[in-house]
Amino acid sequence: MKIFVNPGKEQWKELCLRAKQSESKPVEEIVLKILDRVKLDGDKALAELSLEIDKREVVGGFQVTEKELDEACERLSEALKAAIETAVKNISSFHRAQLPKEITVETTEDVVCIQRPVAIQKVGIYIPGGTAPLFSTVLMLALPAKIAGCKEVVMCTPCDRDGKVADAVLYAARRCGVDKIFKIGGAQAIGAMAFGTESVPQVNKIFGPGNRYVTMAKQLVGSTTVAIDMPAGPSEVMIVADETCCPEFVAADLLSQCEHGADSQGIVVCDSEKLANKIADAIEVQAAELPRDEYVLKSLANSRIIVLYSRAEMIKFANIYGAEHLILSISDGMKAVDDITAAGSVFVGNYSPESAGDYASGTNHTLPTSGWAHSYSGVNIDSFMRKMTIQNISASGLRGLSYTIIKMAEAEGLAAHANAVKIRLENEE
Amino acid sequence: MKIFVNPGKEQWKELCLRAKQSESKPVEEIVLKILDRVKLDGDKALAELSLEIDKREVVGGFQVTEKELDEACERLSEALKAAIETAVKNISSFHRAQLPKEITVETTEDVVCIQRPVAIQKVGIYIPGGTAPLFSTVLMLALPAKIAGCKEVVMCTPCDRDGKVADAVLYAARRCGVDKIFKIGGAQAIGAMAFGTESVPQVNKIFGPGNRYVTMAKQLVGSTTVAIDMPAGPSEVMIVADETCCPEFVAADLLSQCEHGADSQGIVVCDSEKLANKIADAIEVQAAELPRDEYVLKSLANSRIIVLYSRAEMIKFANIYGAEHLILSISDGMKAVDDITAAGSVFVGNYSPESAGDYASGTNHTLPTSGWAHSYSGVNIDSFMRKMTIQNISASGLRGLSYTIIKMAEAEGLAAHANAVKIRLENEE
Repeated sequence: MKIFVNPGKEQWKELCLRAKQSESKPVEEIVLKILDRVKLDGDKALAELSLEIDKREVVGGFQVTEKELDEACERLSEALKAAIETAVKNISSFHRAQLPKEITVETTEDVVCIQRPVAIQKVGIYIPGGTAPLFSTVLMLALPAKIAGCKEVVMCTPCDRDGKVADAVLYAARRCGVDKIFKIGGAQAIGAMAFGTESVPQVNKIFGPGNRYVTMAKQLVGSTTVAIDMPAGPSEVMIVADETCCPEFVAADLLSQCEHGADSQGIVVCDSEKLANKIADAIEVQAAELPRDEYVLKSLANSRIIVLYSRAEMIKFANIYGAEHLILSISDGMKAVDDITAAGSVFVGNYSPESAGDYASGTNHTLPTSGWAHSYSGVNIDSFMRKMTIQNISASGLRGLSYTIIKMAEAEGLAAHANAVKIRLENEE
Repeated sequence: MKIFVNPGKEQWKELCLRAKQSESKPVEEIVLKILDRVKLDGDKALAELSLEIDKREVVGGFQVTEKELDEACERLSEALKAAIETAVKNISSFHRAQLPKEITVETTEDVVCIQRPVAIQKVGIYIPGGTAPLFSTVLMLALPAKIAGCKEVVMCTPCDRDGKVADAVLYAARRCGVDKIFKIGGAQAIGAMAFGTESVPQVNKIFGPGNRYVTMAKQLVGSTTVAIDMPAGPSEVMIVADETCCPEFVAADLLSQCEHGADSQGIVVCDSEKLANKIADAIEVQAAELPRDEYVLKSLANSRIIVLYSRAEMIKFANIYGAEHLILSISDGMKAVDDITAAGSVFVGNYSPESAGDYASGTNHTLPTSGWAHSYSGVNIDSFMRKMTIQNISASGLRGLSYTIIKMAEAEGLAAHANAVKIRLENEE
């Protein structure tokens, strides 16, 4: 693990760089074609793409049946169901507490302005298949959607060659009240939810992680057709540590990040070379014992340890990096959080590992990566709601504002805007 | 004005279509080149682009000086300053009331989860030049930015051939506490704020309206570099009216929308043909008296009156359309708002014209267009903040969660995630 000791400020920007992403142009072209086909031919295109890309013939439609759901729920172990139940409870209580209230202000006499939270009506959730069945992401997206009051929650997820979806994913979807589940994966799933097909309802906003094709599809529809949760990038963790940390814990957290994928990144910022070496040693020892090591070795190559001698400098560096996950294994961690301006989710102290937030503490694990934590929130209740404003103005209220509106409209050269007020003053009932 | 009487449901989708936008491919190519140049050459590219596109040689840098600001403030009429002051007061009080609070939930014993609102540190505001100096947009963006606590608010706006920016725009910027103002317009301004140059600070999020080039630049940087407020489209109003409306007011509101630009759209939904005809007549009479009529005539061609006989159908249609501005000139308007699921801002009753919200009621006028009101909020305090989560878990809190985390991590095949918990349990201090 590469260690940078007291790097100069001019080096900081480079040290904050994420792993290089491969060229996206060919992916964009492929995805654009897929999206066009789904837009034009709906279910027919979905069936053809399943055959072409996944080598799977679609039999009996795309939607997961009640029978399939029953069977999956039957099969899932009680032990895992119990674990999921704890996670559901914590995620629900933290997200329910976030429900925004309506705000009413009479800004001027008889001019009442309201900000009203309204649920987004239809949302789509994408759950990747692949190496690990990410049923925890079902909880993180479907629970807040339902708490927010979304009318219809649609889910797409790839199935295997035999048309099967992991039991835990189906169980989680039913537990969270997902309304419709479709066995569709890849960019075509994003297209289906963005444009709607005969089977798949068109949604207003799409959530969830995915591979390069899914990510590109979300990016493309996101600027033209439907809203998306946030821009996507590889997962990352930054751990800020001082002498109060436990080097083995720091190593374990960094490695839990690295097993996500080859392009994941872990950055340790600590305040002494001695500590840096201890952490590096612990990483080496623990890495040797892990399965999935092809990912771990590759993502360790994107990772680094940076030594900065003062707490203030460590926090400054953390704010420039803007980590998806920020672990503060330092003394007085909660006080340090007050100085954090950019991070997706912060884990304070030696007993708040990232995996707690990934699964069960109650916070959401869908978080901004690649520096987007400077401007984006992680998924939260707001992500499933809009805030609509309402104004209710009486004749006398409008009279009170009329000078201001007319003066400003005329100064902006907008005569009809001024006229909409004048005509009301002249014809007041 | 075209009137559609009781159209069948199969026609609704078409009746909700916005004016066709011209092909964006050539615009995209031009803008991509501009962005690349700004990214690569910073201020030098900005100066060259000013010469090439605006035929203006940049003298003495891009930033508006204190002297220029002093002079603009000096020149502006006291009458307009007084009007702006009223608007500032109302916008500030409505947006201040929106400031979110920190939320703390102990989801399980010794597992404390916090959702903390944090201001986005650096924001950029684009204010178009062109036919009308939109100083009201300065208020709508800079006031909430400062109320939210953004550390640096940067503004770009084009100037005329002599290097002048409208007095009202400069006055509004100073009044709202904008930190730096640059005389840069077009796609290059968006590039400058997205990438940063020697003069212009790089920001985390860009706000504000603009022409096709500005909009395309925002879209391009928005999916790769910095956050943007929302996707842009031409402005629009929907007016839902019944026999309690005043046809002249409806006409005036529709026309105030139409003067925004040739691609603006106004839709009236009312419940009788008689009323439809009265409104159409009033539009004709008032349109004849307006200046800026080239815009008005063109946007009237994108506009229509739709007759639907029941209140329920009118509301349903309004929700499908998802208007930027929705005026409810119907009996019991506030009750009807409860059924509105998609609109940017709602104006209730006969004395709540759109222009009240555009300038002075206190609500924000930066609103989602083109149906984005199904998923986006208008600009509000949240737009300038992120919500960061924090978890503070004690050793015993983690022990309580450990079964859940380990079980779920193992079921997802993520051994290192489980290990980050196990190693803590084994080495508890």
